Amino acid sequence: MTPLTRPYNFAAGPATLPQAVLEQAAAELLDWQGRGVSVMEMSHRSEAFEGILADCEARLRRVLAVPSDFAVLFMQGGAQAQNALVPLNLARARPVAVAVTGLWSAKSLAEAARYTNACACADTRPACTQWPSPAGWALPAGAAYVQICANETVHGVEAPLHAWPDLAALGSDAALVVDASSNILTHSVPWPRVGLLYACAQKNLGIAGLTLVFVRRSLLGQAAPACPTVFNYTDAAANRSMTNTPPTYAIYLAGLTLAWLEREGGLAQMAERAQARSSTVYAAIDTSGGFYRSAVEPGARSRINVPFTLATPELTTRFLDAATAAGLLNLKGHKAVGGVRASLYNAMPLAGAQALVAHMQQFARSHG
Amino acid sequence: MTPLTRPYNFAAGPATLPQAVLEQAAAELLDWQGRGVSVMEMSHRSEAFEGILADCEARLRRVLAVPSDFAVLFMQGGAQAQNALVPLNLARARPVAVAVTGLWSAKSLAEAARYTNACACADTRPACTQWPSPAGWALPAGAAYVQICANETVHGVEAPLHAWPDLAALGSDAALVVDASSNILTHSVPWPRVGLLYACAQKNLGIAGLTLVFVRRSLLGQAAPACPTVFNYTDAAANRSMTNTPPTYAIYLAGLTLAWLEREGGLAQMAERAQARSSTVYAAIDTSGGFYRSAVEPGARSRINVPFTLATPELTTRFLDAATAAGLLNLKGHKAVGGVRASLYNAMPLAGAQALVAHMQQFARSHG
Repeated sequence: MTPLTRPYNFAAGPATLPQAVLEQAAAELLDWQGRGVSVMEMSHRSEAFEGILADCEARLRRVLAVPSDFAVLFMQGGAQAQNALVPLNLARARPVAVAVTGLWSAKSLAEAARYTNACACADTRPACTQWPSPAGWALPAGAAYVQICANETVHGVEAPLHAWPDLAALGSDAALVVDASSNILTHSVPWPRVGLLYACAQKNLGIAGLTLVFVRRSLLGQAAPACPTVFNYTDAAANRSMTNTPPTYAIYLAGLTLAWLEREGGLAQMAERAQARSSTVYAAIDTSGGFYRSAVEPGARSRINVPFTLATPELTTRFLDAATAAGLLNLKGHKAVGGVRASLYNAMPLAGAQALVAHMQQFARSHG
Repeated sequence: MTPLTRPYNFAAGPATLPQAVLEQAAAELLDWQGRGVSVMEMSHRSEAFEGILADCEARLRRVLAVPSDFAVLFMQGGAQAQNALVPLNLARARPVAVAVTGLWSAKSLAEAARYTNACACADTRPACTQWPSPAGWALPAGAAYVQICANETVHGVEAPLHAWPDLAALGSDAALVVDASSNILTHSVPWPRVGLLYACAQKNLGIAGLTLVFVRRSLLGQAAPACPTVFNYTDAAANRSMTNTPPTYAIYLAGLTLAWLEREGGLAQMAERAQARSSTVYAAIDTSGGFYRSAVEPGARSRINVPFTLATPELTTRFLDAATAAGLLNLKGHKAVGGVRASLYNAMPLAGAQALVAHMQQFARSHG
């Protein structure tokens, strides 16, 4: 293994960022483009920051091919805030449904149920090892929306793109709501099926404290009275995410990350890399003779978060300790499931996945 | 005037930061304390970030002498989110009152009224040039809380510390809620009078995207059903601000800013500097023979935001253009009131206020 200049960070989020992005942020931290001020110090109403925000939105629209009838909102509170803000903005006292496929969608259902009549239209608990075919979902009549989690970071289950439900084809006029926090910018988005898509920034778009919401404009204007003004999508769209001060530095970093992504070849390249990284790790699991095990059905295996187990907790601990010593950081699985988890976001080079595989093979040889 | 290495930035927020803080952030942006990862990339559950959060809280408690029966919460959404989150967490369907002394408290009242019976216990509109004596406030019976804005950034009105209401002495058992967004860390806090105090970070504590909430623990446990889980103070206190991912990098920068503040001499030194900076500018206004005018009554003049006017809009524009050319940035008054506004937060050196005064005097001489 070649010496690492920086360790490989497999954290599930906040997560590793492109080194080029960090270097640019450091270089212009005290003085952005000769203005003599840091982006951190810019008034959100200044021409300079307005330009940064507009650039970030333009890059998002370009990279993700966002249709013009979607508003792009820069919000705060993290993806979990959206579990409340989606029903507050969209439910209109109508029923909603959530496909429960892991820890995050289960949380979405629980929070939605605090605001309206919410049911699980599918539920793969307790195993959470598959993507349930939408054809079998129990969609409630008159539902305002149906929500999915496009990638479950804890259970390592990802919805194949072709299996994002086409609700109209299933006879429902509900809007599809997608939590894409962990796999946004790793493949294209089938916008015609989507009503609203949200994602926190701290996995593929920079730092914690920024949440992106893409919402079809026809869904605006229906917020509940209890919705806080600064979290009202309609106001946010009308005020171009400036109902109050947005998280300016996080928006700037998202812009840098998007610029990096475009320089690297765009979304197609990111999709290819996600496939390459995850295939490498799954191959190491599948060829380990059972030393490493993945519980997820092959068709639902996440390209982004690869959880796997070893035979005993003791062996797992030794694996993780040896990994840390080898510069492979934050591989411990989520406490809800234990084991090992490799999170492979856009900023993780293929060499990182390969270094992990080398470690897995070496460890299996010496402990098999 | 000595040459400026960086211009003086008088923005109302996001605002100028200590150069030493920016330099430290830049220096360790790619590698925090030899860990090989940026703070931006750290899992919020990691030991390293837990340490950063604990350090930030400890500094806040030490610098502000926060009593142990207050919880310190690190939240998202900005101060304006608190206009909804305070009633959602504290109102319990009881009436509330807000002392309306400027633009920000007026917004607090309007948002609170969306959640409960809310009235103005004092109202200095439309002029907003004084701090109304609490002895004359109309406090509703059975109020859950009474809110003040400790410093109105737009109108330049600041509550003198001795005039923060002692609600118990006024015969009310309501909790005092204080929006201290713009003057936190510029003087001590009379905690025995306070039930809850909040402040956004982007003026005296770093970057936009972090809001601090100090809440007396006896006020917890009363959130309304409509309160989103991630904005529930009780949950935030129980989960040490980790109900979901907090704005990690903003918390790190707040810690750096607090460490700078302690190195500089702490709160007493900050209070002294605030007095010195603002006195310098007010003296220039008062000795200008009416060329510059401050509308605020002397006892309510803000030490933090100094709005003033010139005779005509044309003269104001020429003043602002000349200021920008001289490296004195972002002095334009808020659109609601026009004119000029100098925001003088902790990171503004006295030399900045003096440079502004020199510009004011020179401009008055050449245009008087």
